[in-house]
Amino acid sequence: MRIGVDAMGGDFAPGVVVEGVAQALVDFPDLDIVLVGHRDRVAFYLEKYGIADNPHLELVHAPTVCEMSEPSAISLRAKRDSSITALAKMLKAKEIDAMATPGHTGATVAATTVLARTLPGIDRPALGASMPAKADRFLLMDAGANPDCGVHNMVQFALMGEVYARYLYHKERPRVGLLSVGGEDIKGCELTKETFKRLEQLPINFVGNVEANTAFEGVCDVLVSDGFAGNVMLKCAEGLARATGYWLKEALNKSAARLVGAVLAKNAFTELKAHGSSDVIGGAPLLGINGICIIGHGGSNPVAVRNAIRVSAECVEFELNQRIVEAIEEAGDLAKPEKVEK
Amino acid sequence: MRIGVDAMGGDFAPGVVVEGVAQALVDFPDLDIVLVGHRDRVAFYLEKYGIADNPHLELVHAPTVCEMSEPSAISLRAKRDSSITALAKMLKAKEIDAMATPGHTGATVAATTVLARTLPGIDRPALGASMPAKADRFLLMDAGANPDCGVHNMVQFALMGEVYARYLYHKERPRVGLLSVGGEDIKGCELTKETFKRLEQLPINFVGNVEANTAFEGVCDVLVSDGFAGNVMLKCAEGLARATGYWLKEALNKSAARLVGAVLAKNAFTELKAHGSSDVIGGAPLLGINGICIIGHGGSNPVAVRNAIRVSAECVEFELNQRIVEAIEEAGDLAKPEKVEK
Repeated sequence: MRIGVDAMGGDFAPGVVVEGVAQALVDFPDLDIVLVGHRDRVAFYLEKYGIADNPHLELVHAPTVCEMSEPSAISLRAKRDSSITALAKMLKAKEIDAMATPGHTGATVAATTVLARTLPGIDRPALGASMPAKADRFLLMDAGANPDCGVHNMVQFALMGEVYARYLYHKERPRVGLLSVGGEDIKGCELTKETFKRLEQLPINFVGNVEANTAFEGVCDVLVSDGFAGNVMLKCAEGLARATGYWLKEALNKSAARLVGAVLAKNAFTELKAHGSSDVIGGAPLLGINGICIIGHGGSNPVAVRNAIRVSAECVEFELNQRIVEAIEEAGDLAKPEKVEK
Repeated sequence: MRIGVDAMGGDFAPGVVVEGVAQALVDFPDLDIVLVGHRDRVAFYLEKYGIADNPHLELVHAPTVCEMSEPSAISLRAKRDSSITALAKMLKAKEIDAMATPGHTGATVAATTVLARTLPGIDRPALGASMPAKADRFLLMDAGANPDCGVHNMVQFALMGEVYARYLYHKERPRVGLLSVGGEDIKGCELTKETFKRLEQLPINFVGNVEANTAFEGVCDVLVSDGFAGNVMLKCAEGLARATGYWLKEALNKSAARLVGAVLAKNAFTELKAHGSSDVIGGAPLLGINGICIIGHGGSNPVAVRNAIRVSAECVEFELNQRIVEAIEEAGDLAKPEKVEK
């Protein structure tokens, strides 16, 4: 199995990426890793982490880099020889089984969609973000790849997420919820109301509308959303978690007793921070691409890179894409765009 | 000034409502309060809190109650004599200057929209939720009254929120942001892209797109959103805050040292919980109704009820609605629905 890794992705590239790759080579001896990046910038770290001559590692030179601050459209057009573009091309040519990048989500979505294309029956790929629930986690689909969605996109997200949760979360019959608002009376917006009607008819364990607050209680394994609301939810959780950490620190600094308390309870705070940490999760799958693609957080550390490689390999091993194609086929017209009446 | 209060609203009605009213009568001696609810169920508490014969208190009997679990459409049709309906009618007849209910958001939106109607130039009212930022707060508009919005609705939300922040948050020139997703390249969905073009042209301090995570950093005073994404953000924050409390408690309970630390730092946790607490805020304004309407949290305590009454009175005092009408008039075509080309 060959996994392509973007050496230039993320805020701390290429150092942390190479360090993560070195860990992966030790932990997963069966994997072949194709590291794509600028050879001069990567060379130092290959030596540093002792993998310059590793027989399971291949280095592919890519002269340019998609900077995290760059618009993805520009990255794709103007940087045909970037590491992300090179990986997407290798994915298309089946030279690699999967790619992992701790990098530019927009550029990766654009490059893989245009170059590797989507799976049969999938119109748009979706980003699946692992969100923490009280005692477990749930996959938020789409977490931001598609700000504007149709009903058929939502259905495809549900089916892809269901397959992912079955294999990667090891749930026999994942509970699929539809992100919505209000209680009994307001059953959501037009998009979710129409989506609800189709999800009900699918051979999945559809648990109905789920509000954003109850999702954290652990009532579903997959939470289906358009990419706008999904991204709002993802970013809201990120922002509130950071603000909470700030408020906590501020409150603990107010007196000596509180500071002593904070020192005694330090490990508890560390554990608190670990909930939903992207390091353990490794990255978000971009589902629906004709090839496995895992996108890590820009701030990924070596452990996160190593885990993104692990998740990529698991997706290949479970034949995730083949199973997605089967689920879409089985859904028939329910996963297709509505025919326009003439 | 006469403020109508829904005695039957919220999870702990009518006890906590009457207690809150009693506090308000002491703290705001200039106010007249019209308490609406079932006279038999309220009487005991009027005696208990010593306000049965208060000259500033009037009791209006309403035989039925909109239960929190009831669909709002049913509440409006089948319960014409509920406390919420009675209040909306009094608002329309100008028998009260404002109403406050710690209750059923859906039923209140429906009753006030149908009975009291919207302000001139306002198509749909919007719920403004006060959200905590690191060092301040921001008003999220719409937090859930309108799951489906047009561009003109969004513009109206922006103008109403701007006026509210000017007077109630005492900001001379409130920063108005547009809730969106993605960075430079993905500038949001179709709705936000079109809304952006109009907000740019308004005589307000429009600060552009704001992602949900940066909103908590305090980059804007008003965050404009459709009611679907806005409600997702509100509920996500609620749910994550509750889950965080759960995780923290769980982590602190793991060892004796941590527990001692938790006791020492107890006040810090109490302060942490107070961030964004609805008790202090009092409630969310339902802006755009022809009459002031403040909707409190269903779990409101007496302090929250007292503060909802305070906010209602402030809105009347600042002539909020008159100022909203002026802002809408000044915006002209920018706040109107797009004309359909023939």
